[in-house]
Amino acid sequence: MASVDVGVALLGYGTVGSSVNRLLVESADEIERATGHRLRVVRALVRDPAKERTFAVGDGVLTTDFADVRDDPKVDVVAEVMGGLEPAGGYVRQLLHAGKSVVSANKQLVARHGAELFAIASAAGVQLRFEASVCAAIPVVKVLRESLVVSNVHRVLGIVNGTTNFVLSRMERGGSYAEALAEAQELGYAEADPTDDVSGADAAAKMAILATVAFGSRVALEDVECRGIEEIEQAHVRAADELGMVVRLVGIATLVDGKVDVRVQPAFVARSHTLASVDGAFNAVMLQGDAIREITLEGPGAGGIETASAVVADLVSVVGTAGTGFLQNDACWRELERLPPTEWRAPFYVHLDVADRPGVLAHAASSLAAHEISVAQLVQHQHEGEASLELVLHEAPIGHLAAALQEIAAFPEVLRAPFALPVITEGSL
Amino acid sequence: MASVDVGVALLGYGTVGSSVNRLLVESADEIERATGHRLRVVRALVRDPAKERTFAVGDGVLTTDFADVRDDPKVDVVAEVMGGLEPAGGYVRQLLHAGKSVVSANKQLVARHGAELFAIASAAGVQLRFEASVCAAIPVVKVLRESLVVSNVHRVLGIVNGTTNFVLSRMERGGSYAEALAEAQELGYAEADPTDDVSGADAAAKMAILATVAFGSRVALEDVECRGIEEIEQAHVRAADELGMVVRLVGIATLVDGKVDVRVQPAFVARSHTLASVDGAFNAVMLQGDAIREITLEGPGAGGIETASAVVADLVSVVGTAGTGFLQNDACWRELERLPPTEWRAPFYVHLDVADRPGVLAHAASSLAAHEISVAQLVQHQHEGEASLELVLHEAPIGHLAAALQEIAAFPEVLRAPFALPVITEGSL
Repeated sequence: MASVDVGVALLGYGTVGSSVNRLLVESADEIERATGHRLRVVRALVRDPAKERTFAVGDGVLTTDFADVRDDPKVDVVAEVMGGLEPAGGYVRQLLHAGKSVVSANKQLVARHGAELFAIASAAGVQLRFEASVCAAIPVVKVLRESLVVSNVHRVLGIVNGTTNFVLSRMERGGSYAEALAEAQELGYAEADPTDDVSGADAAAKMAILATVAFGSRVALEDVECRGIEEIEQAHVRAADELGMVVRLVGIATLVDGKVDVRVQPAFVARSHTLASVDGAFNAVMLQGDAIREITLEGPGAGGIETASAVVADLVSVVGTAGTGFLQNDACWRELERLPPTEWRAPFYVHLDVADRPGVLAHAASSLAAHEISVAQLVQHQHEGEASLELVLHEAPIGHLAAALQEIAAFPEVLRAPFALPVITEGSL
Repeated sequence: MASVDVGVALLGYGTVGSSVNRLLVESADEIERATGHRLRVVRALVRDPAKERTFAVGDGVLTTDFADVRDDPKVDVVAEVMGGLEPAGGYVRQLLHAGKSVVSANKQLVARHGAELFAIASAAGVQLRFEASVCAAIPVVKVLRESLVVSNVHRVLGIVNGTTNFVLSRMERGGSYAEALAEAQELGYAEADPTDDVSGADAAAKMAILATVAFGSRVALEDVECRGIEEIEQAHVRAADELGMVVRLVGIATLVDGKVDVRVQPAFVARSHTLASVDGAFNAVMLQGDAIREITLEGPGAGGIETASAVVADLVSVVGTAGTGFLQNDACWRELERLPPTEWRAPFYVHLDVADRPGVLAHAASSLAAHEISVAQLVQHQHEGEASLELVLHEAPIGHLAAALQEIAAFPEVLRAPFALPVITEGSL
């Protein structure tokens, strides 16, 4: 195979951008063996060319003018590693229109404008790849798009945020949510302002991208039902433990009867379930489909070098498939309806604080039964005239549960607002 | 993208072959969206054209003459799903020489003759893909070759045989090896003659392929150190449990200082380790490398439809990259030395049955110390004048351990041959 230089441009040359360049230089032989080509960074768009870089570029590579990237015929493929919605989004649109394939590590951009960008890429006959935008080095987008083409994936279950996974795992050793979060911040697993992680917003963006790719239909960020971990207390973690479970922030995308539901929320996960054993700040994504049953990918979901390695893998794949029709059709090829959020079904865990009087359980159970929800498991604790009921319910629509809990909350013997989370076991989701 | 027909030939039309055809027919739209092409089975080589098929082919597709496949210009790519070393191997060689890309599901063929076939494919400028030859639908070969091109993978850890994983998991609920194996046979997880699985031979072939791909250097089947699970007793499983571990048949391929070691053997695996939670008959492969730290892929490692889905994914990838230089260089691009088997390092578990006399432990410990092996953990049980010592040793070369155990076995107070297995924890392997 003749060795041909492929010109790469980088939009952004920070931690990820300089790591991409370093990997391209240090692994040039490996890349040539895989693709038959040598890849070389010929342009890098930066704000301040005078700034010191951890891995230097050649003379004349740095530029502050986007037109230098867009109009340079030596640039064959572009990696967008600058982040943010604008100007990154505008740049990517212009590049695709100009016939240049783009690799993006930009979760917010792909989650918010992916469908539009896929359509532009498809019309221009170029590729838009975005492995690094979801779970860093874990190759879940490639596996979905290339290995599971014929698998009819109907569910994606994931632990896609390392910060919350660390915090919830840490709480199993005791201590409050605030203490676990502080430890995550000390260790660098959580930012000074952890809102994006603990609110579920980061996970929601990733699940929107994964659901879009898995189901071939646009899932907008605002379609993702999202609940964070801020309300999780040590008592919930202990209650889960008593039931042989752990609390985890889980992303769940489901295709039911041609309708899509995507949600991020804390859940009780059985200890025997693959997602329960995902380590600290790692991520895992479980893909369920017809021909494959269930394939799980697990690994580091964040990190500069991990993200850069996914960008390079995408560059390798773009170069390796250039000139073919591979992955050049619109990834959003159908428009699926959204499942009404109340119709989503799961088994649930419910905690009730009640006055310790006979008949309370019967009262609650009859209210659940009236909404066609049956009780699978019950643990009752008594203390100082109060009782707490830990219930595991059989699968039911979340709307039925909400209606039943609203009734139950109004019982005079119920002391505090009921607390409910979905339950994930091998047999259920 | 214009729709162009791509002619597919199948060598073999049994369970896997007919499932491949069914997936190609039923998912023709999905495949066209991914590749821009429609794939159609135009030839299928069989022994008996009159035999009834679970999914029928068109008129004139079945043939008993290999030349019909090799010489048909309508055949663009061939899936070898017949199994066995010959005539499959000869057919694949001829097809590659004739300029046709081949997808193979044949573990024995790839494990034994992969290096030679890669070289032929590379010289002919065509592709040889073999995802289905290892762990069925789990896309570990694609991830290694396409996503982890620049990751310098230096270790592959795997549970790559579902039968043994089921048997060993089953023994945790009590019962003998023979009972667990009988149950696996009843449930269809083990064959009537389970030798290939329980001896580790099946896992060894898969690890030879994975190590070859991961390290880019041929690992011959006979280079794999192999130990089966036949000697595992309920007592070992209980001893593991006491130490917070489980017994699993693990494949380990390691690149140390430019030398390769590949082995399959039972090991004590910490319960918190990802490999310990691999379910029953599932497989999991853990890839450790520079840029990615550790990526794990888990899923069903066997099954007709799962294997067929991997074959179809490979066909999709071949068609999607046709005419490029992608993956057309020899996958075995370097020749790495084999690590002398005695130099392979791990922490070990050792069981000793000894006479219950003072000084026995000191005697054993001093023998281990003389070979520079230190004890990390010790549990001693006494019963009827005997004692059993369960030792967990710090990491040491397996050759040192063997020498120490040979000395210890000769002690008059040692009642039976020592039993040792490597230990896999998060911190070690």
